[in-house]
Amino acid sequence: MIKFSINKVFFLQALNATKRAISSKNAIPILSSLKIEVNSQSITLTGSNGQISIENTISAEEENAGLLVTSSGAILLEANFFINIVSSLPDITLDFEEIEQHQVVLNSGKSEITLKGKDVEQYPRLQEVGTNNPLILETKLLKTIISETAFAASTQESRPILTGVHLVLTNHKEFKAVATDSHRMSQRKLTLDHSSDDFDVVIPSRSLREFAAVFTDDIESVEVFFSNSQILFRSEYISFYTRLLEGNYPDTDRLLGNNFETEVVFNTNALRYAMERAHLISNATQNGTVKLEIINNQVTAHVNSPEVGKVNEELDIESLSGNDLTISFNPTYLIEALKALKSETVTIRFISPIRPFTLTPSDNSENFIQLITPVRTN
Amino acid sequence: MIKFSINKVFFLQALNATKRAISSKNAIPILSSLKIEVNSQSITLTGSNGQISIENTISAEEENAGLLVTSSGAILLEANFFINIVSSLPDITLDFEEIEQHQVVLNSGKSEITLKGKDVEQYPRLQEVGTNNPLILETKLLKTIISETAFAASTQESRPILTGVHLVLTNHKEFKAVATDSHRMSQRKLTLDHSSDDFDVVIPSRSLREFAAVFTDDIESVEVFFSNSQILFRSEYISFYTRLLEGNYPDTDRLLGNNFETEVVFNTNALRYAMERAHLISNATQNGTVKLEIINNQVTAHVNSPEVGKVNEELDIESLSGNDLTISFNPTYLIEALKALKSETVTIRFISPIRPFTLTPSDNSENFIQLITPVRTN
Repeated sequence: MIKFSINKVFFLQALNATKRAISSKNAIPILSSLKIEVNSQSITLTGSNGQISIENTISAEEENAGLLVTSSGAILLEANFFINIVSSLPDITLDFEEIEQHQVVLNSGKSEITLKGKDVEQYPRLQEVGTNNPLILETKLLKTIISETAFAASTQESRPILTGVHLVLTNHKEFKAVATDSHRMSQRKLTLDHSSDDFDVVIPSRSLREFAAVFTDDIESVEVFFSNSQILFRSEYISFYTRLLEGNYPDTDRLLGNNFETEVVFNTNALRYAMERAHLISNATQNGTVKLEIINNQVTAHVNSPEVGKVNEELDIESLSGNDLTISFNPTYLIEALKALKSETVTIRFISPIRPFTLTPSDNSENFIQLITPVRTN
Repeated sequence: MIKFSINKVFFLQALNATKRAISSKNAIPILSSLKIEVNSQSITLTGSNGQISIENTISAEEENAGLLVTSSGAILLEANFFINIVSSLPDITLDFEEIEQHQVVLNSGKSEITLKGKDVEQYPRLQEVGTNNPLILETKLLKTIISETAFAASTQESRPILTGVHLVLTNHKEFKAVATDSHRMSQRKLTLDHSSDDFDVVIPSRSLREFAAVFTDDIESVEVFFSNSQILFRSEYISFYTRLLEGNYPDTDRLLGNNFETEVVFNTNALRYAMERAHLISNATQNGTVKLEIINNQVTAHVNSPEVGKVNEELDIESLSGNDLTISFNPTYLIEALKALKSETVTIRFISPIRPFTLTPSDNSENFIQLITPVRTN
């Protein structure tokens, strides 16, 4: 039966990271549990919601953990409840001891708390992912790619495949991440430093956002492993599994052409704030669009919501070339696209009032492109 | 028709303070509006939810306001919407102009926003409170008294009078604030520096919490005026009206006696954290009580929730005198009582397991007393 002592603060960090995979309202009640497995050299904490699973290992070799294992074993504890209890303990050190009938006694300072647990055999088996030939990615870069694409995925379950981000490796080095909800699209390309096996997977965008929250910036790189139905991101202490989406991702390359009629360079933030003002007014009506007019080297934005009011605004531009054009679109899509851009200026290229327009950061237009579909107003 | 220009940041501060009285979901739809009244020397903003009303005046003499009035008038604007629009404006200066049919044009930088307003005649008349013989109170002191008492008021509408805080002035100088939900009570006394007319009113605790949010710490003192049904708190620029509760407040003095059998002095925070641990476990069962045992100069706390687990804890004490005693109560009441205490140590006096016990800050036991009713467990 389990017996160990540990530094409370270090233990809590690991517990909170693991908790990100655990939902207290799960269709499978046992998944509201945290699995604790103790062996002579380490503790492994496991949480899962059936979509993502997180395993967090605390090693006895990690000095800050203050981990001293007296006896091994495994148990399930109600995750939220257990974590609240641990964080309330008075002393910096926590003694954890399993007694009969899956009960656990926590001692800290003058406080003694007894908790009921469950038999570890009740916990479902997580699918395994083979750990050969890892793809190695910088954590920071992967998190950037997620922030540039995941927001553009659909939140509607009507076409489940679009709720994911399409990740593809071709020619062993050419990496592409793309997401679309069919109204807008965001695509990031990258040439890897080291070659790897090609892959073609669709990962739920929600899983990727959880990945970004779990893998903190002090974790330099992650190993990525694939199976047919799952992907595993692994660092020294954390294993993060997520289910893949099944089905064929639509061909997004055909949406991107090279021809355009009008090109405008804006200051990214100035355009974003103008669109946020427009959105406040457009949001009050059902069609909710903003009209952009490019006439005589001037760009103006217009919203008219008869019930509420209207906006007329002259937009500052950095440069402009091509034909006059009037185009209407949902300002929310442009606001979110501009938020995903880290560049100070943005180049927007228009083909016609009824064709999607593209956004590229002015300093890296090859590798990061976004696309927004206009709204036909007549 | 209204025309003025103003500093956006200063205007927003006043708007946000006024907004605290405005609920977007009010049974009287017109109360989701903000009333703007402009005269040659100032602007007055008014918001109300029928219970509380706030008037905020911006004077042309206030340098930071940058207020320049060209033309006077009054109008109603949808409060939330208008404030969001103002905060989104690009420039530090805002030009506000009323055009025909209760429409308003806002100009800031290159942005021009037109909003629909309503006829000011549609706004209900707020009840008047005579402004003679003010009671003058330090804002900070009044806010302290609120934080010491308002939490103990009832949140249940079954006895509406208990949702208020009872404020009484007797002998022109003896001030008392008391709140109770019939399970616990908190009472603060104070001798005023200057004598004033006696009063006896019950103010909704929710209104008092709003008062504490609206009157920032830089406002040194407030004038207090009474009418039959309302109270007015007034500073140089802000008038805060709240409805009074009607009915007789129960006699709480009879609950406080001087006799006690057992007296224990605790460190306030240590006792609070122990009760928070106890609450985590007790909260899982319906009766939800903690048992305090005072035996042989030792104080221990115990919770047993058969479904979840148990807590046994030895409590550090500063001093103890009197008889042994075992008493059960809801730890939430003790936690909230301890949070309201600013003193490092707390004196708790017990009469018997079935009689309410009292808490006083060890450094000011005359003026601040709280009372908690135990739970009979057999």
